[in-house]
Parts: sequence; C-alpha cells; structure tokens
Amino acid sequence: MAVSNIRYGAGVTKEVGMDLQNMGAKNVCLMTDKNLSQLPPVQAVMDSLVKNGIRFQVYDNVRVEPTDTSFKEAIEFAQKGAFDAYVAVGGGSTMDTCKAANLYTSSPHSDFLDYVNAPIGKGKPVSVPLKPLIAVPTTTGTGSETTGVAIFDYEHLKVKTGIASRAIKPTLGLIDPLHTLHMPERLVANSGFDVLCHALESYTALPYHMRSPCPSNPMMRPAYQGSNPISDLWAVHALRIVAKYMKRAVRNPDDLEARSHMHLASAFAGIGFGNAGVHLCHGMSYPISGLVKTYKAKDYNVDHPLVPHGLSVVLTSPAVFTFTAQMFPERHLETAEILGADIRTARTQDAGPVLADTLRKFLFDLDVDDGLAAVGYTKADIPALVKGTLPQERVTKLAPRPQSEEDLSALFEASMKLY
Amino acid sequence: MAVSNIRYGAGVTKEVGMDLQNMGAKNVCLMTDKNLSQLPPVQAVMDSLVKNGIRFQVYDNVRVEPTDTSFKEAIEFAQKGAFDAYVAVGGGSTMDTCKAANLYTSSPHSDFLDYVNAPIGKGKPVSVPLKPLIAVPTTTGTGSETTGVAIFDYEHLKVKTGIASRAIKPTLGLIDPLHTLHMPERLVANSGFDVLCHALESYTALPYHMRSPCPSNPMMRPAYQGSNPISDLWAVHALRIVAKYMKRAVRNPDDLEARSHMHLASAFAGIGFGNAGVHLCHGMSYPISGLVKTYKAKDYNVDHPLVPHGLSVVLTSPAVFTFTAQMFPERHLETAEILGADIRTARTQDAGPVLADTLRKFLFDLDVDDGLAAVGYTKADIPALVKGTLPQERVTKLAPRPQSEEDLSALFEASMKLY
Repeated sequence: MAVSNIRYGAGVTKEVGMDLQNMGAKNVCLMTDKNLSQLPPVQAVMDSLVKNGIRFQVYDNVRVEPTDTSFKEAIEFAQKGAFDAYVAVGGGSTMDTCKAANLYTSSPHSDFLDYVNAPIGKGKPVSVPLKPLIAVPTTTGTGSETTGVAIFDYEHLKVKTGIASRAIKPTLGLIDPLHTLHMPERLVANSGFDVLCHALESYTALPYHMRSPCPSNPMMRPAYQGSNPISDLWAVHALRIVAKYMKRAVRNPDDLEARSHMHLASAFAGIGFGNAGVHLCHGMSYPISGLVKTYKAKDYNVDHPLVPHGLSVVLTSPAVFTFTAQMFPERHLETAEILGADIRTARTQDAGPVLADTLRKFLFDLDVDDGLAAVGYTKADIPALVKGTLPQERVTKLAPRPQSEEDLSALFEASMKLY
Repeated sequence: MAVSNIRYGAGVTKEVGMDLQNMGAKNVCLMTDKNLSQLPPVQAVMDSLVKNGIRFQVYDNVRVEPTDTSFKEAIEFAQKGAFDAYVAVGGGSTMDTCKAANLYTSSPHSDFLDYVNAPIGKGKPVSVPLKPLIAVPTTTGTGSETTGVAIFDYEHLKVKTGIASRAIKPTLGLIDPLHTLHMPERLVANSGFDVLCHALESYTALPYHMRSPCPSNPMMRPAYQGSNPISDLWAVHALRIVAKYMKRAVRNPDDLEARSHMHLASAFAGIGFGNAGVHLCHGMSYPISGLVKTYKAKDYNVDHPLVPHGLSVVLTSPAVFTFTAQMFPERHLETAEILGADIRTARTQDAGPVLADTLRKFLFDLDVDDGLAAVGYTKADIPALVKGTLPQERVTKLAPRPQSEEDLSALFEASMKLY
C-alpha cells in the first residue's frame, strides 16, 4: 500500500518552481492541453518556473482522452527535449500522457507495447528510474496525481487500455483548489462521477486476500490489489465528501468551498482506487468511450466525438451495483446510506436495488443523460461493447462477482435507459 | 502530506529478502536489539536473507530508549560495513537507530548535531540520498515504520530530542502481525498508549494553516506540519481501533485479531502524526523518561532504569487534554465519545474534563501506574521536568494553546496522581 505525496492549498501551484529547484531540475517539460494552455493554471506554473530561473519547454498538444498516437507524439517531444523533470498541468489526460512520456523517455529501447497492460501489451514491470514528475490537477475527478496508472485509447483495436505501475506515480501532486474555478458545469459533474465510481468500485472490489494469482515476488504484484483496510478508509471518506459537496460544486462555479472539497476527494479516491483498483463501471466504460460515434459532450471544447470518461463510467453504475451487491450487501447498503438513502428498513437482499435507486436519483438530480441510448448506443451495439470489455480483465476480475459475456450483455442492456 | 509504503499481512516478513533483491541490495545491515535477536522475527528476516542469497551483518546492540552514544555506536558499525541497504527489526528504538545509522553513513562529513532538531542541534535539511531501509516493527505503538523521525536521549543535557526529516522515512514497512504475539502484557499496554496519544495529539494539534512560521520554500517546512484533513482521517481511524481492540490486545497474548488491529493502528497513527505532529503529551514525556531515577518497568528486560515511552506519554494525558480542550472542544468531545464516553448531555465547556475522565478510566482499566508519583517523581522534580520540556518546542508549539512555564508546572503537578 503506497500513499502518495500531495500538497494541498489555494496557491500551492506557485511553489512548483521551488519544488523543481529542490529536485535539481534545470530543463523542464511542461505538459498541458490546448484549452488550458491559455488559462491561469498554466500561467501560474510558467510564472513560477520563470521566477525560479528554470528553463522549460511547453507541450500543449495533449489530446483529451489520449490515444496511442497522441501518447507517442508526446513521447517524441520528450525524447528530443532531454528533460530532467516534468510538470503536468491538466486533467487525467494530461497527467497520463506525461507519465507515459516520462516512462518511455527513461526507457528508450522499449517498444511501446512493452509496458502496456496485458493482454493487449506485454505488461512488463518497470525497473528503470524515471525523472521527477509534478502533477497539477485542474479537474476534480481523475485522481491521476496520486496513481501509477496512465489510460489511453488503443486505436488499432478501438479499445481503452493503459499502463499500470507504481513507478509512474507522480513524485508530487500539487492540489490547488483555485484551479477548479475555471471548470465548466459538465466538467465538474463528469469528473465528480469519476470520483463517485472510484470510491464505490474500490470499496466493493474483491478483497486483497481473495485476489488471485498472488505472485510470490512483491514486485510482480499488480498496482490494483483489491480492497483492503487502507483503501477502504479513503474510499469511504471520498464518498462522504461527494455526498456532501458534489451537487453544490456542480451548480455553483463560485463555490470554492465545495469545489475545494471535491478537489481533495478526487485525490483521496485516487489513493484508494490506486491501491485497491476499480472494476466493472470502469472496465465497461472503456468501450463506451472508445466506440463513441457522434456524441459530443456539452462544455468540452474538443474537435472529436467524446463521451467524457466520468460519464462513460457512471452510466452503468446502477446496473453494475445491482449485479455485484449479492457479494457484499452490507457495503452496498452502507454506500447507499452515505449517498442519502434511508436504509433502516432495507433488507440485505435488496442492497443492489437500494444502491441503484440512490444512484439514479443522484444522477437525475445532476441532469445526467438518460443512459447509453442518450449517448448514441442501441441494442445492436451491445456485442461490440461486450467485446471491448473483455480485454479489460485487469480491472473486471476485481469485481466481487465473476461475469460471463451474457452478464456483461445484460449489464449494458440494463444501462440503455436509467430513469 | 507524504508517502509511507507499508505492506501488511501475517508472514510478510518472509518477503524481505525478495524486496531487498528487487532493490538491488547485496550487502545488508540488519539492526535489532539483544532481546529480539534470539526471537522469531529476527530469525524470519535472516532466513529470508539467506534464502535470497543476500549477504548481511547483524547489529544487535541497539539500546532500548537510545542515546546519542548508542546512536553513534550504530553509525560507526554501519560506516565500517559499507552497506547498500538496511533492515530494522524491532520497536521504535531499533527503527530510529537504524534511520540515524543510514543518515550519517550517507552523509559522512556531517557533525552529529547537524541534523538534530534545533535548538539542541542545527536542524539542517537532509539533501543527501540515503540507502533503502526496510522497517519490520515488532511492537504496536511507535509507528516509526511510517515516519521520518528518530528520537534519542541527548545525555549531555539529559533530554530527549531527535532528528526529523522526510528523508529518513523507511522505504518500506513490513507490518507482520505474527510479531505481536511475542509481546509481553506491559509492552502491549505501553506501546498502545503511544498509539492513543499519537492519535489524540495529532487530531488536536494546531491546524496546518495556523502554524507559523510557514517557510516559503517547501523543503524547509517541518515534517510536523499541524493537523490537516489527511492526518485527521488517520488519527480518528487509529483511535477507533484503539477503542475497539486495545484492552483485548493487552489482556490476551493469543488474541491475534486484536493484536493485528493494534499493529495496523500503530502504522495508521504513525502516518497521521508523522505528518501532523504531536504536542504536549510527547513534549512533556521526554524529560519524564529522560530524568528517570530508579523506576524499572515491568516486562522490560533492560539493565537500566526505564519509564517506557508510551507510559511517559500517557501519564500526563488527562491533564494535557483538560488544558487544551478550550481551543477545539468539539474534537476533544468527539475523541472522548470514540473512547466510550456518553457525550449526549456534555457541554462544550466540559470537553476537557470529559475527555480526561474517559482517559483516566481507560488507564485504570489497564492497570496503569497512578501518575508521575508512581514512577518516582515528586513535586521537587517539577522545575527539572519543566526545564526538560522547554527545548521540545518543535512539538510543544503544535499544541493548540500556548503554554507558559507556569502552565507546564501545573500540568506536571496535576499529573502526579491520576485516580
């Protein structure tokens, strides 16, 4: 169990130059995306680098929902720059791209698939030393500043996969709530749903002592090790914050208190799922976003169709937790209660429907699209969605209940409409 | 808020050889104390090192409640050995000694006082790289496996002080509950009191945003940074475990469940106080153990008078929290409730006495000596006890309420008898 280095506070971004100086950095790669490159978070980082006399180059070509192609472009940039440290300013897409750039630049003779999760890649353990990476999250969902995971679309197979290794975890996360004030409403909602599902999935994941195989060499054990007494603490705490602050954070752009708490909840849930793992909502989300046809999410300024990650994750959550509840009904009821359900008269066997109803109400209150149908999918897409879920066994095997292809079909079908 | 890597489970000690091999270690220093060197935890480590073909030397000369002299002996041993990694098997004394040996061997040109906390030492920041250190705690109190702190008696001034730097934090803590089964009753009780006070003090410490000064360079900020939203989570969680399991763990040597939970609580509280800090119970405990006259604690097999650390900490706790409660009465009431008090009718202004009474009952139930008088102190010793507390400002300034010398006198006097 690894806890992460984070520093929290309004304005901590201004310290990034000093941190890099303390790390001995002289030539820094600043990664961000085109939208953010004109916004205050990136400006604050550049000002701090200039003030501390640190040379840097900006890479602002990060793709929102990155692909192997966009990862490779960033890696190429990093290789040419011969940087001795990295700063990622943005959401999960930027932090994940930066992790990949750092990894492959530090391991120049590796093939791209070497470190990509099996079965798509070879899933090799990382044994090369990486450069320091400071992550400055500007969204309140991914928790990528605390995890050793980098997710991308593998275009060739039209499927999401990723790299998972403790070695790519950022050296430091600077969690500055001021950055949340620039977030449009849907971005707050969708990234909040990611936090919600990180918490729910890691808390209901297969316990660490029931996971198999359990490699005898600790180095070969996966980053996602199943629910455990430490990740449980983070998951429940993050969920309580979501229950208390998420609606306020979505609805009020100026509610710094609520958005600050969601910014911390994102990191807390990240520490939880970064050690325990996620399961079906995330495993099924990858084809939902990977196979997107024409849906373009409101509030996202991108030039390609997009089902945002948090939305793709949360749309299946009522169906998923109805399915999984029979394994750990108490935990499902407990989370429903945290999210506002009255469980005093609930029976154990109703844990799934109780949590599902609670989630549906939560999503409805936050104006979430009515299921997979509303983001462009029909029943005819289900076989492809199932096929895209099968390679995600790294996470789906952490579900408390095994799933057949028929089970997955039924879960997608049950997620076509929510209300 | 910083990293602590821990791995938990019955038998994880057996993995230490593989961990060291993964770290590239070839010549390891195994530190322990004379009592433990004949016991199963050390044997398990040696077996694992042998099995993995790792060369090692044993240093079993660690002093329980170490001194600058005993630290220096260990440092000298380490310097001669030119080790590339360390394993500490024992309680806080062993882990702290090993941290110091690793630090000064990695910084051979430093004077011993360079890294010692001001005002006794120079309190220089650590900028040299250290060797990997794996900590295997065998007591359930110190949490030293998760902290960047090493405490010792500075004999010349007859006062406890220490070294505090994130740089000396162990690379990995292996938390193996099997080791708790060898602990005699008083060792479980006293180390549990250390956990109790770590949790209570860090939860009631001055909040991080009220601490001053706040050095502009993050590297210069103290390891003990005041209570914060992350340390709070660990403190409260550890306290709940203490409330639930400590009495069982003390009374039943075979209660592996209770002792396992206390072993984890020790690490959890360590992560909490290792970031937030402790305050008056710890600050006042250093002269209480440092000025010991003839008291010899039951169940401790040592050849010198000894007030065990956890006992020296807890004896002042009723007086301390009566004194501090006016600042954060809600937190004091909340902790009293966790420890079993009925606070439904308690008034805010009674928070101190309510928590103090709860603590007195808790201590009485666990057969704790009746105050400072019972460990050999009289009123005539109070000026010396106060004088020994004054240099502990690194921690005492984290108390939620400032203290004059008169306040400290009154706190010692109120701690002479508990019941």
